Amino acid sequence: MSNNIFEQYLEQNQANYVALTPVSFLERAAFVYPNNTATINGDIRRSWREVFERCCKLASALNKRGINRGDTVSIIAPNISEHFEAHFAVPMSGAVLNSINTRLDAEAIAFILAHAQSKVLITDKEFSAVVKKAVRMLPTPPLVIDINDPYYTEGELIGSLSYDELLAEGDSDVEYFKPSDEWDAITLNYTSGTTGDPKGVVYHYRGAYLNAVSNMMSWGMTDHPVYLWTLPMFHCNGWCFPWTIAATAGTSVSLRHVRAEPIFELIKTEKVGYFCGAPIVLNMLNGVDVSLKSDINHTVKVMTAGAPPPAAVIEGMEASGFKVTHVYGLTETYGPSVVCAWHDEWNEKNSEQQAKLKSRQGVRSPMLDQLMVANPDTLEPVPQDGSTIGEIFMRGNLVMKGYLKNPSTTQAAFKGGWLHSGDLAVWHSDGYVEIKDRSKDVIISGGENISSVEVEDVLYRYPKIQEVAVVAKPDKKWGETPCAFVTPIPGSDITQNEIIRFCRDNMAHFKVPKTIVFGDLPKTSTGKVQKFLLRQRAIDLT
Amino acid sequence: MSNNIFEQYLEQNQANYVALTPVSFLERAAFVYPNNTATINGDIRRSWREVFERCCKLASALNKRGINRGDTVSIIAPNISEHFEAHFAVPMSGAVLNSINTRLDAEAIAFILAHAQSKVLITDKEFSAVVKKAVRMLPTPPLVIDINDPYYTEGELIGSLSYDELLAEGDSDVEYFKPSDEWDAITLNYTSGTTGDPKGVVYHYRGAYLNAVSNMMSWGMTDHPVYLWTLPMFHCNGWCFPWTIAATAGTSVSLRHVRAEPIFELIKTEKVGYFCGAPIVLNMLNGVDVSLKSDINHTVKVMTAGAPPPAAVIEGMEASGFKVTHVYGLTETYGPSVVCAWHDEWNEKNSEQQAKLKSRQGVRSPMLDQLMVANPDTLEPVPQDGSTIGEIFMRGNLVMKGYLKNPSTTQAAFKGGWLHSGDLAVWHSDGYVEIKDRSKDVIISGGENISSVEVEDVLYRYPKIQEVAVVAKPDKKWGETPCAFVTPIPGSDITQNEIIRFCRDNMAHFKVPKTIVFGDLPKTSTGKVQKFLLRQRAIDLT
Repeated sequence: MSNNIFEQYLEQNQANYVALTPVSFLERAAFVYPNNTATINGDIRRSWREVFERCCKLASALNKRGINRGDTVSIIAPNISEHFEAHFAVPMSGAVLNSINTRLDAEAIAFILAHAQSKVLITDKEFSAVVKKAVRMLPTPPLVIDINDPYYTEGELIGSLSYDELLAEGDSDVEYFKPSDEWDAITLNYTSGTTGDPKGVVYHYRGAYLNAVSNMMSWGMTDHPVYLWTLPMFHCNGWCFPWTIAATAGTSVSLRHVRAEPIFELIKTEKVGYFCGAPIVLNMLNGVDVSLKSDINHTVKVMTAGAPPPAAVIEGMEASGFKVTHVYGLTETYGPSVVCAWHDEWNEKNSEQQAKLKSRQGVRSPMLDQLMVANPDTLEPVPQDGSTIGEIFMRGNLVMKGYLKNPSTTQAAFKGGWLHSGDLAVWHSDGYVEIKDRSKDVIISGGENISSVEVEDVLYRYPKIQEVAVVAKPDKKWGETPCAFVTPIPGSDITQNEIIRFCRDNMAHFKVPKTIVFGDLPKTSTGKVQKFLLRQRAIDLT
Repeated sequence: MSNNIFEQYLEQNQANYVALTPVSFLERAAFVYPNNTATINGDIRRSWREVFERCCKLASALNKRGINRGDTVSIIAPNISEHFEAHFAVPMSGAVLNSINTRLDAEAIAFILAHAQSKVLITDKEFSAVVKKAVRMLPTPPLVIDINDPYYTEGELIGSLSYDELLAEGDSDVEYFKPSDEWDAITLNYTSGTTGDPKGVVYHYRGAYLNAVSNMMSWGMTDHPVYLWTLPMFHCNGWCFPWTIAATAGTSVSLRHVRAEPIFELIKTEKVGYFCGAPIVLNMLNGVDVSLKSDINHTVKVMTAGAPPPAAVIEGMEASGFKVTHVYGLTETYGPSVVCAWHDEWNEKNSEQQAKLKSRQGVRSPMLDQLMVANPDTLEPVPQDGSTIGEIFMRGNLVMKGYLKNPSTTQAAFKGGWLHSGDLAVWHSDGYVEIKDRSKDVIISGGENISSVEVEDVLYRYPKIQEVAVVAKPDKKWGETPCAFVTPIPGSDITQNEIIRFCRDNMAHFKVPKTIVFGDLPKTSTGKVQKFLLRQRAIDLT
């Protein structure tokens, strides 16, 4: 026995230890607030008691069909109530939830289903064509379950039975699976890498529970938020917000398509108080007619991540009365694990300065253990001088278990005991991190590093520009020079010269793009600009 | 290797797993909000950066003095900044913090210091007389450190050196202790049992971290609360609020003595938004002149626990504009682990109905796993009928490691895999628990159980009564009858007859006290009425 008196006869037991699981939040919401509205999809409103019962039934039905711990259940669905339920019901069966990006093509979906060894696929009519094709490619296809949303009348039912029929097979009063080890996998999220096969990021129960709560803390959320699903649930499990909404006994408002009209409509009718979205979503909302934004008489908080938000985009949202919180993270960190925590004294600054402060990625979120900007070779932190560039590293309980069936990539990601983000940033004197680029997106011109993000940020302030991406173009003299691909605001008359003039007025001259190309930007299925394609185009131009 | 693909090559490592510790909240507050005010004691205001540096130094100084993991550091101090710091600094040295009830006598303090094997005792001048006596009783006295609060000029310095001198021995830049196992002990709190030797309740890092956050969730706390220390820090580590205040980067406002004038003064000058207190504290605040309460222009939230609050006390506070949250727990559950979670629809009820709903203990707090009212022999839950009495049981991560050096009592407390609370309650149809009595406080009259709390609750509504306690008095005919010990409002003319008449108008006749005794109530050092003494007096009356 230990000599330490605090280790004698003080073991863990059933009374004082339980594995953390976000399903406990659902259980509590259903017990404490059984009649509060949990999910809304048009006129279909379900209480927390109903959602809990449905999840129990779905878990039981999956068990009856032979699905258990160690199995994978995939889902391809828009942001509707069934997708929300799956975040609880699938873990309650013991299986791992794999929510697949709805924008993928059949080949990519088939790759994921095969790699994840999915035994069940829950799908939605909207994606029936591509899913049917994907399933046909598989030697051992999963059991396909159709969500039959009455509000979506296109597409077809392609499965063996419907979601509701599966539910009906289950019992609501059997004991559902609870993990005995919080290190168990709860979900599996494939990253939509810009090159190569997607990697399967495995989340553990511990991280899912803690990030659900860390979200609340970062965002100052209290009980009963009304949350609108502008952020895809297939993105890092909607950044873990299904579990946050359960922890706060809030309301999950469905949204099949991210369009401005239904967003503003739901903000008004359902009194939505919270939503998340990439800067491009905010940009879309900024662009709509002011009449749509009138009559909002309550505070709406917006969390943005996914790409460094141009200060102009933040400024636009705040001018319309939205309170923007900027967060940053990776699929590997359950989504945002870094937050641009606000300081009250910054309220004194003007809106441009505020937006600039807010466009920085920030500091570790409350439940991430450590964040640093460091030299990727030595893991030596860079000075907090706002100018030395290093790579962002994280460590703590909001970091994935690793990549599924991919030990070498997992090892590389965790080399030295830190998660390597691949993002390049500076560390400001106040401890806030600001991304300058993805490692591979930095432009090196005449030996000077140019941050493509910084150049883009300036260009976004130019009124005639809707979207822009800057990449390196090979150059005999300078090595590389910045090349800007620009999508103008529709109908605007814009010239290369005026853009270059604007740049020269607003940045160091060596950073000014030498080449301007007009046109649409190629994007991944998650809306990220595919810079590797633009880099190829820039090479072709030389 | 496991057949489960989610267990292959996905081990814990330094990048994705860290033991939970509430010290991480201090570290973050100091990093993100270095200049925000962390502690206030009169004119002594320290920022989070300063508090963090002082804690680093204290931890380092303790290490230099040979204090390490497995050792105990005790403290006897009022609610001042040094006591707050000790909640971080002592764990940062690896040692376990033992905060001792300041109202204990020398014998009890000596017992605790010996039982806890304390190597260091941090003490405050206010308690110098009793502490000097206690230390003299010990064969191997601890190193005694004096807090020399300039705002307290009485008492004497009795230690080997002062707190600030000890601090000066430490370095702020050495690595402090972080637990590798979150099951490690962080603090040790002795229960002030009404009989027998005090028991040492051991808290683990995991529970301290989770309860700090669960507090936020229960209370709807967001960042930067200003928290006033009306609740003793020696009570379940101030119910874990030192860590909650760090997690929210709030401000900890010292309060040496719980008196109405400084409380209202600090609410106004420091804009205090939150404080906790037993119902007796609320009762004291209700009793003061209205002029003291004027000029409070912000919301003040009050959390109350420690005894079932009479509905009249809650009603009084809310009438003065305070928002009361009622919570319940035990030293064994890190303080409150049950909360009377509010339902918005209850706002429609009148203030008396609201107070009655709020006087119930409630439901499990967000991070407690399970709560039930059950038969103590069979552990079978009682029906949720609002009338069947059972014992309250808890389980989950907010339950202690156990009692120090007391395996048999630990085993008994955890029998059947649940923590036995010893409190008797009914379970309402809405799932809310309401305490009827401590097991030993129930009165059995003519075969009927009478809840002493219920009778007291009625008596508290009588305007001339300041305090009341009801116990069983042996009776030849009925077995037992209720006997009420009453402290009248000073200067009021009150008779036994009018009290009995009021009772007959307001409760079943068999519950009406047959005996009324006027006088002061005997209390423990933590302010709990010592019913065992009253029971003895009642016996002596027969």
